[in-house]
Amino acid sequence: MSHNTFGHLLRVTTWGESHGPALGCVVDGCPPGIPLTEADIQQWLEKRRPGQGKYVTQRQEPDAVKILSGVFQDERTDGQVTTGTPISLMIENVDQRSRDYSEIATAFRPGHADYAYSAKYGVRDYRGGGRQSARETAARVAAGAIARKIIGGVQIRGAVVQIGPHAVDPRRIDWTQTENNPFWCPDPEMVPVWEEHLETIRKSGSSTGAIVAVEALGAPAGWGAPIYGKLDAELAGALMSINAAKGVEIGAGFAAAALSGEDNADEMRAGNDGPVFLSNQAGGVMGGISTGQPITARVAFKPTSSILTLRRSLNEAGEEIDLRTKGRHDPCVGLRAVPVVEAMVACVLADAMLRHRGQTGR
Amino acid sequence: MSHNTFGHLLRVTTWGESHGPALGCVVDGCPPGIPLTEADIQQWLEKRRPGQGKYVTQRQEPDAVKILSGVFQDERTDGQVTTGTPISLMIENVDQRSRDYSEIATAFRPGHADYAYSAKYGVRDYRGGGRQSARETAARVAAGAIARKIIGGVQIRGAVVQIGPHAVDPRRIDWTQTENNPFWCPDPEMVPVWEEHLETIRKSGSSTGAIVAVEALGAPAGWGAPIYGKLDAELAGALMSINAAKGVEIGAGFAAAALSGEDNADEMRAGNDGPVFLSNQAGGVMGGISTGQPITARVAFKPTSSILTLRRSLNEAGEEIDLRTKGRHDPCVGLRAVPVVEAMVACVLADAMLRHRGQTGR
Amino acid sequence: MSHNTFGHLLRVTTWGESHGPALGCVVDGCPPGIPLTEADIQQWLEKRRPGQGKYVTQRQEPDAVKILSGVFQDERTDGQVTTGTPISLMIENVDQRSRDYSEIATAFRPGHADYAYSAKYGVRDYRGGGRQSARETAARVAAGAIARKIIGGVQIRGAVVQIGPHAVDPRRIDWTQTENNPFWCPDPEMVPVWEEHLETIRKSGSSTGAIVAVEALGAPAGWGAPIYGKLDAELAGALMSINAAKGVEIGAGFAAAALSGEDNADEMRAGNDGPVFLSNQAGGVMGGISTGQPITARVAFKPTSSILTLRRSLNEAGEEIDLRTKGRHDPCVGLRAVPVVEAMVACVLADAMLRHRGQTGR
Amino acid sequence: MSHNTFGHLLRVTTWGESHGPALGCVVDGCPPGIPLTEADIQQWLEKRRPGQGKYVTQRQEPDAVKILSGVFQDERTDGQVTTGTPISLMIENVDQRSRDYSEIATAFRPGHADYAYSAKYGVRDYRGGGRQSARETAARVAAGAIARKIIGGVQIRGAVVQIGPHAVDPRRIDWTQTENNPFWCPDPEMVPVWEEHLETIRKSGSSTGAIVAVEALGAPAGWGAPIYGKLDAELAGALMSINAAKGVEIGAGFAAAALSGEDNADEMRAGNDGPVFLSNQAGGVMGGISTGQPITARVAFKPTSSILTLRRSLNEAGEEIDLRTKGRHDPCVGLRAVPVVEAMVACVLADAMLRHRGQTGR
Repeated sequence: MSHNTFGHLLRVTTWGESHGPALGCVVDGCPPGIPLTEADIQQWLEKRRPGQGKYVTQRQEPDAVKILSGVFQDERTDGQVTTGTPISLMIENVDQRSRDYSEIATAFRPGHADYAYSAKYGVRDYRGGGRQSARETAARVAAGAIARKIIGGVQIRGAVVQIGPHAVDPRRIDWTQTENNPFWCPDPEMVPVWEEHLETIRKSGSSTGAIVAVEALGAPAGWGAPIYGKLDAELAGALMSINAAKGVEIGAGFAAAALSGEDNADEMRAGNDGPVFLSNQAGGVMGGISTGQPITARVAFKPTSSILTLRRSLNEAGEEIDLRTKGRHDPCVGLRAVPVVEAMVACVLADAMLRHRGQTGR
Repeated sequence: MSHNTFGHLLRVTTWGESHGPALGCVVDGCPPGIPLTEADIQQWLEKRRPGQGKYVTQRQEPDAVKILSGVFQDERTDGQVTTGTPISLMIENVDQRSRDYSEIATAFRPGHADYAYSAKYGVRDYRGGGRQSARETAARVAAGAIARKIIGGVQIRGAVVQIGPHAVDPRRIDWTQTENNPFWCPDPEMVPVWEEHLETIRKSGSSTGAIVAVEALGAPAGWGAPIYGKLDAELAGALMSINAAKGVEIGAGFAAAALSGEDNADEMRAGNDGPVFLSNQAGGVMGGISTGQPITARVAFKPTSSILTLRRSLNEAGEEIDLRTKGRHDPCVGLRAVPVVEAMVACVLADAMLRHRGQTGR
Repeated sequence: MSHNTFGHLLRVTTWGESHGPALGCVVDGCPPGIPLTEADIQQWLEKRRPGQGKYVTQRQEPDAVKILSGVFQDERTDGQVTTGTPISLMIENVDQRSRDYSEIATAFRPGHADYAYSAKYGVRDYRGGGRQSARETAARVAAGAIARKIIGGVQIRGAVVQIGPHAVDPRRIDWTQTENNPFWCPDPEMVPVWEEHLETIRKSGSSTGAIVAVEALGAPAGWGAPIYGKLDAELAGALMSINAAKGVEIGAGFAAAALSGEDNADEMRAGNDGPVFLSNQAGGVMGGISTGQPITARVAFKPTSSILTLRRSLNEAGEEIDLRTKGRHDPCVGLRAVPVVEAMVACVLADAMLRHRGQTGR
Repeated sequence: MSHNTFGHLLRVTTWGESHGPALGCVVDGCPPGIPLTEADIQQWLEKRRPGQGKYVTQRQEPDAVKILSGVFQDERTDGQVTTGTPISLMIENVDQRSRDYSEIATAFRPGHADYAYSAKYGVRDYRGGGRQSARETAARVAAGAIARKIIGGVQIRGAVVQIGPHAVDPRRIDWTQTENNPFWCPDPEMVPVWEEHLETIRKSGSSTGAIVAVEALGAPAGWGAPIYGKLDAELAGALMSINAAKGVEIGAGFAAAALSGEDNADEMRAGNDGPVFLSNQAGGVMGGISTGQPITARVAFKPTSSILTLRRSLNEAGEEIDLRTKGRHDPCVGLRAVPVVEAMVACVLADAMLRHRGQTGR
């Protein structure tokens, strides 16, 4: 991961600002011969798309992806496939509402990266947050759609497991439920609780944090490259790079600190198709290498920093100001993070798969 | 981070197995003209060295570092300085006790990476865990000593803040206390609690997890490179790459999920030397860029997997076995992780500093 | 350099096929605050643009570049500047003539990469050569325009110094002449010779090779990073990556093999502004580091492989065929390589400048 | 290639100065299970070793390599194999003759990188040239020995084809002859000519340049990764990074500039085992991808800059001095470059093989 590129053999470079003409990514190193159309990518963008409910930003963006390179529809066959050359994807910004930015042009919004960007670069595109905007995550989701194709049989699924102080009981997680409610909630009984919490938050112009859980099922043992290319280290870096992420844990995560060695070490027995683990505290990764168990992680997201409450801050001149951040914002960014988290896991796994195959031939 | 190298402009490559002749690292890209002797590095290795108390492994390793390249003692001046060429550091293994490894040669120890390495590579150095051994972290600490020199005025300090279920109250953290007890504990009142807990654990042949907190003070605003080179993403990857790490959080971390936007967004007022933040939920990083506040992180470590209790497992032939892991092991690896965590933070910050200077000239 | 990306701190990723909807690049790591408009880039694309004379391909492409991200026109100032975020550039393909590709769809054109792509990927976009097409070099030229801005005072100039067997006498090189003829020829007396040679070649449906010389004036001493990031090694890699390049030399190059040590080693005397070298056999680079002298290189280009003469080859089924490559082709690709060579030198130098500044602070 | 590391999946990091305690390299990403002993590496170091004839430096270095990590001798099998973890190799400097360096400590030797290092770093290890010394190439040769193992069936062979003005006629090249004379000369009739030339050069305290040719036989079609990871671009960068290299060409190289399209494009016919090329002007690489033909390259080396003739130069104070470079030097560095060139080709090919396998599974 460096600047705006991540991955080693499968390399994703993203670009674009919230209020520029477009955003997109270049996915390089994709294996050739994989069927890929715009519809294959669009379906995942739909999962992430704003404007789909009252708890996400009302910005209306079709997020229609265009494939500009790297695929070929051979006249002699009936499908479009990847060619092994870089796949350039572009999503045009449509609803970058024309408005007056003079208020925030010189103000540092608390909790946002305005001050940090300004301190680093001396200049910043303040329209809609510029490069810091969560619109950048659309490019991640698009890249993830390609990564999912590469890892084929591996299923990646995410869910919101906590909103504000209301956490789902891990024993009640039912993955089949996540698409039945607007919160990616795996526990139907939690849905009304979150609904009420979010309604309160929304009405008060406040915001709330969330935790997203993700699992990858079907990855074989052997992916990941110790020591600094450990699969869990790469997942941690990739997930923490998502806007508003503040914590990442693998398997038992922080709870592992309170465990005894007996409770933590996953025992093994012989199964019909290789080892069967009797628990998965490790989250499917040991020594940085996948074990064949489900790869599990959780990501904590802070509450949206754009809130209507008046907050103390500074402007570029260093003067003290009081600021309320108007605009079309998500009261809980974690809600829209699910497909982004899934996409980052897909990209990390696809890259690990290719590198493992490169080194070992398997 | 790729395979056994991490960093971009300051690049650290480590090598070595637990029971090979030596281990070490190559630190490339160090600025020239920085005073550097073996003693400068040795002091940090002493902090991490095994054999220093009954709660850490009894393996006796002097961990004496040798600088093999990259420094020069000009006859005309009185000090040895870096030259800008790669600095090769080597630590010889001395106490890789000659013993019979036949029992674990073919066994997969539960909670260890034995099975994962075997599945990936088809071959593994089973003596003392080979490359998975925590001895590798000595190379990180050595590299970190150089990184500390590069970032000069930035102070990095770590502490153990939880052992097993016993967590230090954050309000009671006193950083001046960490060197006054064998646990890097910042709260003197917690010391006897941990002592008793560890004694129980040790006697029963079990192990326990821990959480390490770390802070970097004095880093200016502007370090870090969005989007995928975000400072917090790089910290997360670097810290999760440490042996036994299972979780990383920045600033408020997982607790941020339960916060409201008002409580989470750090407000600013004008100070004498630039902005003053009224809180630090962000942990000193916003949008992936340092803000000038203390950079704060926490890392969760699982309990050591080597325990005396009989555990169910498999051998390489796929047969079910019952296994107890004898040997000289730490009941709590988190205890020795403090200097390693500090070193990784130092390396990430030094690399970020050089890259920031490269891009912006500041 | 990896896959479709090159550079370390200034990273250029290019994408696009000859007959796809567009091609482009993402330039990441650019310093902030540099004035940059589309016109700044367009001027260099004009130098490279096809359709400008009878000795270059008649494909009519406006090559109009669009900046999609990474710049900002602050309302409060009067110019558009870089923001430090990735700059995405796109050039739409306009004249990808609709035609029947059935003849070459299954044929391997001799001298082209058709067979190699097919052997590697199993699939290839055969329209206009797909990714192998020299249209990709437009993206390099666009990136080079940004690199030139970064290195400011450094002047980069290229010339064709040989076409077919007709080489310019080095003593007759007059850099001011290169824009006065359609061949970038620095010796007016050679122009009619080349004109006649090219006319003969063109009429016979053949093609011819060329050598391009390039110089960078004004680069300070100190750029480049031994051992494997040597400035001359990076130049060699970057220049050899240009379509049809078969050789690269720095300074005296291959002629150095026949020199004596006395004739080769550049002597130094004291000048008003530092060292003055009495010769420049080194081509401005010693030990991989710039010396402050002009950086000089030469690149050999093979003749275009698309010729009208019937040639023996194979098709994808492995059957022997006889093939003549029709289409709109340059009889001498070297003619259009000048701005591409200049662009690659600019990119390498800008990256070296940023890395040098990162490591040394100078 | 960056700083002191090259390669992508097979990564080589070298370190060490001429007069430090040792030099070496870390080879990361090697496939597991490859038989590897110190003797396997030592044989190639012997080819490069100084002190073996009157035309190479008289420094006496045993160049005994030690493997410090990354291999394992399983008690249950009879051979030592790679484990997939980083292989650390070390060669101790033995004959770094203790002498008085006061003369060159402050002098810039013409043709050497003394001035460039000083300008870049402000400090330099002047003993024996420090990091600029050709002793660094021993680490390359050691790494190349591992790379040769990875690419197995591919044979790499080098020869000196020109010394000073005396070039071997390409039609007279007989690869079986190179080990029958001290010059790696493939034409026995040229041996006495070079002998006389070198004797004259040696006696006069001068030096002479050379050209080395190299071939890789048996590499399959498909290695290399366009656009910026082209196989020929990577070869060019790797070969130009060798000390004293000033030019690199692939296949017909600079001669291609004078060819017609008909003479240059290699025709194909059907063979028993796939395509048969009727010529190899391309040098086995088209579009940056191997074609299955022999991969051929040539590298030009300048004459050694250390000569006994008095030369004009400067010292660090900027004062004009006259300097003659005494010491134990090769009159023709090209003579010792053959195993280094071979090693770099081996490393580039092994890396390309692993990356190709990673992306395509073949």
